[in-house]
Amino acid sequence: MQAVALFPEGPDLRVIEKERPEPADGEVLIRTLSVGIDGSDRRIVDGEIGGDVPDGEDHLVVGHEAVGIVEDANGTELTEGTVVTPLVRRPTDAGSHAAQNGELDMAPAGAFHECGIFGAHGYMAEYVTCEPAYLVTVPASHAEYGFFVEPASILEKSLEQAFAARSGFNWRPESAFVLGNGNLGLLGLARLATGEEFERTYCLGRRDRPDPTIDFIERVGGTYVDSRETPLRQVPAAYEPVDYVFETTGYPKHSVGAARALGPNGVATLQGIPGEATFEFEGGAFHSDLVVNNKALLGVVNSRKTHFEAAVDWLSDVSSGLLDDLVTGRYSVDEIDRALDDSPETLKTVICFE
Amino acid sequence: MQAVALFPEGPDLRVIEKERPEPADGEVLIRTLSVGIDGSDRRIVDGEIGGDVPDGEDHLVVGHEAVGIVEDANGTELTEGTVVTPLVRRPTDAGSHAAQNGELDMAPAGAFHECGIFGAHGYMAEYVTCEPAYLVTVPASHAEYGFFVEPASILEKSLEQAFAARSGFNWRPESAFVLGNGNLGLLGLARLATGEEFERTYCLGRRDRPDPTIDFIERVGGTYVDSRETPLRQVPAAYEPVDYVFETTGYPKHSVGAARALGPNGVATLQGIPGEATFEFEGGAFHSDLVVNNKALLGVVNSRKTHFEAAVDWLSDVSSGLLDDLVTGRYSVDEIDRALDDSPETLKTVICFE
Repeated sequence: MQAVALFPEGPDLRVIEKERPEPADGEVLIRTLSVGIDGSDRRIVDGEIGGDVPDGEDHLVVGHEAVGIVEDANGTELTEGTVVTPLVRRPTDAGSHAAQNGELDMAPAGAFHECGIFGAHGYMAEYVTCEPAYLVTVPASHAEYGFFVEPASILEKSLEQAFAARSGFNWRPESAFVLGNGNLGLLGLARLATGEEFERTYCLGRRDRPDPTIDFIERVGGTYVDSRETPLRQVPAAYEPVDYVFETTGYPKHSVGAARALGPNGVATLQGIPGEATFEFEGGAFHSDLVVNNKALLGVVNSRKTHFEAAVDWLSDVSSGLLDDLVTGRYSVDEIDRALDDSPETLKTVICFE
Repeated sequence: MQAVALFPEGPDLRVIEKERPEPADGEVLIRTLSVGIDGSDRRIVDGEIGGDVPDGEDHLVVGHEAVGIVEDANGTELTEGTVVTPLVRRPTDAGSHAAQNGELDMAPAGAFHECGIFGAHGYMAEYVTCEPAYLVTVPASHAEYGFFVEPASILEKSLEQAFAARSGFNWRPESAFVLGNGNLGLLGLARLATGEEFERTYCLGRRDRPDPTIDFIERVGGTYVDSRETPLRQVPAAYEPVDYVFETTGYPKHSVGAARALGPNGVATLQGIPGEATFEFEGGAFHSDLVVNNKALLGVVNSRKTHFEAAVDWLSDVSSGLLDDLVTGRYSVDEIDRALDDSPETLKTVICFE
């Protein structure tokens, strides 16, 4: 079968021929339908992050946003033909607390691998094997968009953590602000704009009209905020002090800037992972603003099965037209280089296996 | 009656003669027993923060950590002779959401005054009046230490917010770290060291032995961490990555430093309110550390009735000997200047009205 593999020397990304995997006891065989590509994948391929090969191997199969069909249920509780999407983390020690309680997303470094990112093969292969415990069912009607479940699950986790962090009082949020109009930002905005938790949504970008991301923001009912005109600290005056910030830029000044955009009792979740950066910082104002306004700043990484399930629930209600707006290219495995190309027009590209 | 009043011109602090207040309908008359002094009081008296006089007045009665006895229940549900401690905030609009839901500690600026801090008289007077809704009962056995309820309530709120912020997963904290060995830090450490939530506690200071604060830290079972030898970022390696940080220093580098001292999934609450300060900052590392380790940073200010009640519950179990260790001076109202004096030996000073 074909697979897209990263050889760390170089690094060098190649489409290789691998033997089709045999499911071990308790595992199912999955025929991969499609695998989404995100910014992390591009950084892995560029050798910036992750890329560690599994023990005893010379390559890492990449891809962590996958959807596939159970081809061989292998005596498990799953049924052949079921559409599934796999979680990303796997325990390094199956007996550990982190592995047993289903919260690998909260496990400390060393307690897990991330499939397609480091230490365990990913899903950009015609067939993969997986234990049902790490699979979430996707309605067949949405099989074509199942690669969105993983990124959407990040928003679900962030939202859960944000509401938990505000559960010690009677929080009444009205507005949410997404930092970044890349794929995760726009997908998150579409979720936040459902009206379930927030009445008004905003999204930060730095693009001129006409622009498809601005069109998308407005299509879901959000307000576009141009960071070149309105820096974060001016957002409360220019728009409103917001109740929730969902950061996706990985721009390190946004860690502290997110807090400045919040109103009293607001909460920001950070998801971006920047590299090293040192800068001048109004630390006194940051500190006192957090305190006198009871603000909260949370880092959030990865997600667990319940977040995948919440993401499936939401995505099942989203029109295919809206999701199609986020997909800027579907490619065959032989077109992996084109799929990895990044440009201002790129939102989500996808490798399709059929 | 005597009262300690701040006249903003100057500013000038004087013991004045005032008319004994008459309780309005629905208010009780309280005979003040004692009023604690904290760092905020010193900053108010120095004209650094607060100090705004009530409408139509030329002075502000100071003091916000009080305990007294109901002298005239005035037809309310309270009983004469009951020992009580008053909350700090009062609504500017009694019909507002913040006033109605009992969470004035989460109210936005403008929605409240703080008695003895800004906009409403405090409690450093022989008699004060108050509605029962803003009073919490203290066991008569602990009347002598009732001024500790307000600062102890800050720790209770912070702890509640910290656990709320970690309620979205199976958090299993073991260690707590207090930044600052002033009165609030030591009082907080004593609470955190009860063993109810944490197995190990640490307290940061910058003093040489022999020192009464180091003695206190060790008396309650904590470990003294000298910040001159072990900066916050080295705490995880030198001691352990901690699960909870309670910041009381108001040192602006501690806002970001607190996060560095945390282990995975840890939470820090900030309580100090620094002035302006700008400095170089490893913002990339701060941002990515929060994210990949699911860390949380919360600002916490003021407290509400349930936090006062939790503080009373805890203080009722604390030995008077331990609390006496924190009280470095009890003064009459005429000795207010001595009570306000600050030195490395000063922990908690108290004005006693009888």
